[in-house]
Amino acid sequence: MEAKNLWRFLVLSIGVVLVLLVTWLPNKEALDCNLYSGWCTSKNRFYSSAHPNNPIKKPSFSTYHHHKNQHHESEIPQHPLDPLTIQEFNKVRTILLNYPLFKSSSSYTLNSVVLEEPDKKLVLKWKKGDLPLPRKASVVAYVKGDSHVLTVDLETGQVVSQEAITWSVSGYPTMTLEDMVGVLEVPLKSTEFNRSITKRGVNLADLACLPISSGWYGTQVEENTRLIKVQCYSKEGTVNFYMKPIEGVTALVDMNKKEVLSISDNGQNIPVANGINTDYRYSIQKLNGGELRMLNPISLEQPKGPSFTINGHLVKWANWEFHLRPDPRAGIIISQAKVRDPDTSKLRSVMYKGFTSELFVPYMDPTQDWYFKTYMDAGEYGFGLQAMPLDPLNDCPKNAYYMDGVFASSDGTPYLQPNMICIFESYAGDIAWRHAECPITDLKVTEVRPKVTLVVRMAAAVANYDYIVDWEFQTDGLIRAKVGLSGILMVKGTTYENMDQVPNQEYLYGTLLSENIIGVIHDHFITYYLDMDVDGSDNSFVEVNIKKQETSPGESPRKSYLKAVKKVAKTEKDAQIRLQLYDPSEFHVVNPLKKTRIGNPVGYKLVPGATAASLLDPEDPPQKRAAFTNNQIWVTPYNKSEQWAGGLFAYQSKGDDTLQVWSNRDRPIENKDIVLWYTIGFHHIPCQEDYPVMPTVSSSFDLKPANFFERNPILGVPPNFEDDLPVCKARDSA
Amino acid sequence: MEAKNLWRFLVLSIGVVLVLLVTWLPNKEALDCNLYSGWCTSKNRFYSSAHPNNPIKKPSFSTYHHHKNQHHESEIPQHPLDPLTIQEFNKVRTILLNYPLFKSSSSYTLNSVVLEEPDKKLVLKWKKGDLPLPRKASVVAYVKGDSHVLTVDLETGQVVSQEAITWSVSGYPTMTLEDMVGVLEVPLKSTEFNRSITKRGVNLADLACLPISSGWYGTQVEENTRLIKVQCYSKEGTVNFYMKPIEGVTALVDMNKKEVLSISDNGQNIPVANGINTDYRYSIQKLNGGELRMLNPISLEQPKGPSFTINGHLVKWANWEFHLRPDPRAGIIISQAKVRDPDTSKLRSVMYKGFTSELFVPYMDPTQDWYFKTYMDAGEYGFGLQAMPLDPLNDCPKNAYYMDGVFASSDGTPYLQPNMICIFESYAGDIAWRHAECPITDLKVTEVRPKVTLVVRMAAAVANYDYIVDWEFQTDGLIRAKVGLSGILMVKGTTYENMDQVPNQEYLYGTLLSENIIGVIHDHFITYYLDMDVDGSDNSFVEVNIKKQETSPGESPRKSYLKAVKKVAKTEKDAQIRLQLYDPSEFHVVNPLKKTRIGNPVGYKLVPGATAASLLDPEDPPQKRAAFTNNQIWVTPYNKSEQWAGGLFAYQSKGDDTLQVWSNRDRPIENKDIVLWYTIGFHHIPCQEDYPVMPTVSSSFDLKPANFFERNPILGVPPNFEDDLPVCKARDSA
Repeated sequence: MEAKNLWRFLVLSIGVVLVLLVTWLPNKEALDCNLYSGWCTSKNRFYSSAHPNNPIKKPSFSTYHHHKNQHHESEIPQHPLDPLTIQEFNKVRTILLNYPLFKSSSSYTLNSVVLEEPDKKLVLKWKKGDLPLPRKASVVAYVKGDSHVLTVDLETGQVVSQEAITWSVSGYPTMTLEDMVGVLEVPLKSTEFNRSITKRGVNLADLACLPISSGWYGTQVEENTRLIKVQCYSKEGTVNFYMKPIEGVTALVDMNKKEVLSISDNGQNIPVANGINTDYRYSIQKLNGGELRMLNPISLEQPKGPSFTINGHLVKWANWEFHLRPDPRAGIIISQAKVRDPDTSKLRSVMYKGFTSELFVPYMDPTQDWYFKTYMDAGEYGFGLQAMPLDPLNDCPKNAYYMDGVFASSDGTPYLQPNMICIFESYAGDIAWRHAECPITDLKVTEVRPKVTLVVRMAAAVANYDYIVDWEFQTDGLIRAKVGLSGILMVKGTTYENMDQVPNQEYLYGTLLSENIIGVIHDHFITYYLDMDVDGSDNSFVEVNIKKQETSPGESPRKSYLKAVKKVAKTEKDAQIRLQLYDPSEFHVVNPLKKTRIGNPVGYKLVPGATAASLLDPEDPPQKRAAFTNNQIWVTPYNKSEQWAGGLFAYQSKGDDTLQVWSNRDRPIENKDIVLWYTIGFHHIPCQEDYPVMPTVSSSFDLKPANFFERNPILGVPPNFEDDLPVCKARDSA
Repeated sequence: MEAKNLWRFLVLSIGVVLVLLVTWLPNKEALDCNLYSGWCTSKNRFYSSAHPNNPIKKPSFSTYHHHKNQHHESEIPQHPLDPLTIQEFNKVRTILLNYPLFKSSSSYTLNSVVLEEPDKKLVLKWKKGDLPLPRKASVVAYVKGDSHVLTVDLETGQVVSQEAITWSVSGYPTMTLEDMVGVLEVPLKSTEFNRSITKRGVNLADLACLPISSGWYGTQVEENTRLIKVQCYSKEGTVNFYMKPIEGVTALVDMNKKEVLSISDNGQNIPVANGINTDYRYSIQKLNGGELRMLNPISLEQPKGPSFTINGHLVKWANWEFHLRPDPRAGIIISQAKVRDPDTSKLRSVMYKGFTSELFVPYMDPTQDWYFKTYMDAGEYGFGLQAMPLDPLNDCPKNAYYMDGVFASSDGTPYLQPNMICIFESYAGDIAWRHAECPITDLKVTEVRPKVTLVVRMAAAVANYDYIVDWEFQTDGLIRAKVGLSGILMVKGTTYENMDQVPNQEYLYGTLLSENIIGVIHDHFITYYLDMDVDGSDNSFVEVNIKKQETSPGESPRKSYLKAVKKVAKTEKDAQIRLQLYDPSEFHVVNPLKKTRIGNPVGYKLVPGATAASLLDPEDPPQKRAAFTNNQIWVTPYNKSEQWAGGLFAYQSKGDDTLQVWSNRDRPIENKDIVLWYTIGFHHIPCQEDYPVMPTVSSSFDLKPANFFERNPILGVPPNFEDDLPVCKARDSA
């Protein structure tokens, strides 16, 4: 990392901390936005796009604190699941400052400060107008090498529980942004490291380095040391430094002591790729004559405005209502998703809580500088922490609403992650349902309903990769969870400039993408936590197996047909499911005590999309840590502490606190409050089109009503009529 | 079918035929649109939607001939693959009228009259400005129980080849609309049939009947007789007669003689369901208080108009160019799809021809009145013939362009299938590519490009089911083929009104959807013909297998990684592929003689989406006939006669002319002109939400460039800027 930039960051951070200290600590009250507009940003901004001729300040990390107006500082929680407010963060911080554990320690890190959700039963009972439920914060702290989990009661101002975790499970808390940034300069203290870099012809001022979680492999050096590896790139001539790896130079760093433990310097003959035309910025493409204008503008227009309302964190749209909050680890948390039944006009519960619990991204190169790249992006880096401000008009269409995140930095002071989540209505020209009668029946009927959905989106850039996380709600009751992958490949330097130089027997672990650049094969797994509450908390998981049934002799001219056979899962192991194309099933979560008018149990089904399975050896250390990818589907009984599929302390964990471990206890799950888990997978063999920035690749799964409604719930929606649609003009002719 | 309606249809048909005879046969010239506006419809109509207060005539079968203006009658082919024009249809008809085979026969049927494509080599050489290639028509005729395939040379006016097919392969040609309509009244001639209907309490005037292809089961009655089964419904009180089956009454009809062969009458105790609230028409829903307005209007707006141009049948959009034509059997045929390389500005070939070759829809009920329901919708019914006029603003968004089909009726006279295909640009708010730098790297970069695509769509209503067929083109070179299923279930009558009445041991073959209605389990398979020409006609199929590789002791702290192993398919059997989640592969079509700058063979890959496999017994007669669903992927050498995966004569075929049979010849396919075949599958266990009309369910696959371009081909596209987007007003405030 460039020293100058680091300085800027540090100075800014210190400045912010000072402002906060001055402002809040003395009076513990709201910021005066007239005085301290820095912390005051708008709730719903419609930034002009970054037209190069008309540059408009867009949010970025260092300008977070310079937005106009905002009411975050005076926010008070309106719903038991609302995230901690700025006032609450500051209160927590004050309480902790006076708490013995921290008082006695000159250095500690708050790795996570988030709402401690009230008991589910209390939340379910709570309704608008009721007294607020007591507010608590859940804190993960790292003090003198030990991880602690604390609960802070915001009413009493007390720490009400504290647990030192070190000896019960392996692993460390999620890194803080300060951890990640802090380790980057460490290798530069090593002359050996600097010599390695310089020998490759890279100017130290051009260095861009990444903090790479080092996994866990059972070696001596990993015991009792919080490790990280640092690898660097050259940003000479491009912002796309990822395409200019300094291959084979790896610093192993002690994250606590901020000391280099070892430097390896392999592949000294591998040149740094030239990076020509890798800068993907529009301004640069235009400058270099690479601009490619192919399309007239197209826009989603809503002349009467969007159909959703957002009150605090409560979203209402069409027949849906749900609570939405940003989370530093999960990113987006959807809670209490309910859909209105057109027959009764009542809201009915579908899902109590849904979020991306963990990611696993193993690279398929076992060599020294690559084998450890087996990321768990949520538990190691914080999926929400990496969700950068969305780019209005491009990340989300015109009428999107933007929700900010407010998170705690490592000393507990709150900061703003502006525009972290967007909410918008989408219409792609698709069809919700249709039927046309054909000439055979001579009925003149054509009825078609356009399909409009509500999308909740964030985009997390975990260093090179960008994950676009969508929760899409349909009026027919379906929820689609979709992940789009874009961003930049993690590539490997090579001496080869052309495939004809590669000896026949040599395996590259990937694809030669450009001269001296290999895109290494890797997988992505995204594991979702889905606390389904279908018409109530107690549900059962039913596997509806579709199996070939042979007919008996004389029974039918047919030899075979497919028969649906239902099996209710009694215990967790019944619900450890690997998808089978040739032994397929539907996967239903039903409420066994609620039936439709004609007697079917009400339910939702999980409908997998295209996916990929982890094929690593189950005993391979990364796979043990990511054992939650051993199956695509799991069902566990609700347990407040089982939320993170790779363990609460995923960093450097040994795999002793994963979904696999919990599920193997084989607890009863029939007619219980159950949590459904599903993993989306991708195998990615890079191709040249992924260079220097990748077109988005997506996958998804659906939660789809299955005998939840008595009938198609959108039978009565009207078609589009010409009169409803807007009259538009081009801006330059308007 | 109601006799009155049949009469109307017949009178109208005769009228149309007379008009055509009078108009064209004498002068063989264009229609005068001032005189005969009936055949003149607009090329690109923007119908107002069917607002009940403001009803606007929408096209339907009986009004096809009443559109204003149109230039079809004066059309001349502009491209060798343009479909037959009205003038050409009439010329073919005249030629055939004088051809001995037809001259000597008092009754014959032309089951198909379509363009006979010129030799692929000639088409590939042809370019705009060249002399037109000789025009020929391919005719399938059914004369005195024999099927004939003829080629008519339109220049010489001669039949240049004729082949009687009867003894070489089994099966009959695709039914004509006249066949389908013609058989419906046949059962009504039987007093036994009428008695059965009346006994169920159904008024004969309320009958709505369907022509149901009877499959093939190797029985005596099937030999040398073109059979069809007729089952009927009551349309009393609803247009949704499908929900009021007269269960168990089946007439077996000789389609040629139009005679009832037998009537079966089972399940006489099964009442006809009441059909309450099954009428899905908006006007009726509104009338009955079922209207459900949940959303403000939303519209895809393009202030400067769409970015595509359509010249005849040639579509140009962004970096794509392709030929598009309606086909009575396939529906949509995409030809010569080419994408522009941003590096060279040259168009490069991707696919010579793509279309839905066949469908297979087996129902999973082996009982007497259901076992035979194993439809092959393209070969039996004509997928394109069933593609009803699209509903503007609902089937396709505002700026869609509509393309008509012109097909031949059974005596060879052309008729119009208006608005059969639409072409539009879609933007759902999605992201083509993005990257944001995160605080770790301290670079202030957020670059996002919105994703806009071009969609080509038709919606075929094969009686109850509606298939929405999309070909979606992306600027990054990807082609997505998507099928949406909507429409109405084929249901079975039952005595049960509630699941609690069903004995524990009884299996219903489906789901009780409403009182007296079972939604029977079924599958859908849609098989695509994809003549890939990746940068030229000669290509190879490469399976890139992703397999677990264990590391050697001491090689790495990792135990395993995934390795990509390429295998070039030498012969057809190497490319008979069943997808395997736990032994996955990528499937590439490469041009082995063309390499990228850095030496990768240029290619496209087939990326399957979520799918389902046929699990029927391979020896079950329906599965033998639909043996093309035995694998998901096949590759065959290009052979002009191998286009229809279930055989040219799929109706009542025995499975002797399927893709499986061709592929089993195991011909060489390496570095040849090859055709890729892919099948999308669905298992459908109906649920109450599918009643009385089904929310759309979709599946898709992608053809994705893989080292086809040197780099991301849309690196240079600009983001959205606020100035580009339109200024819109609600119509009522405009």
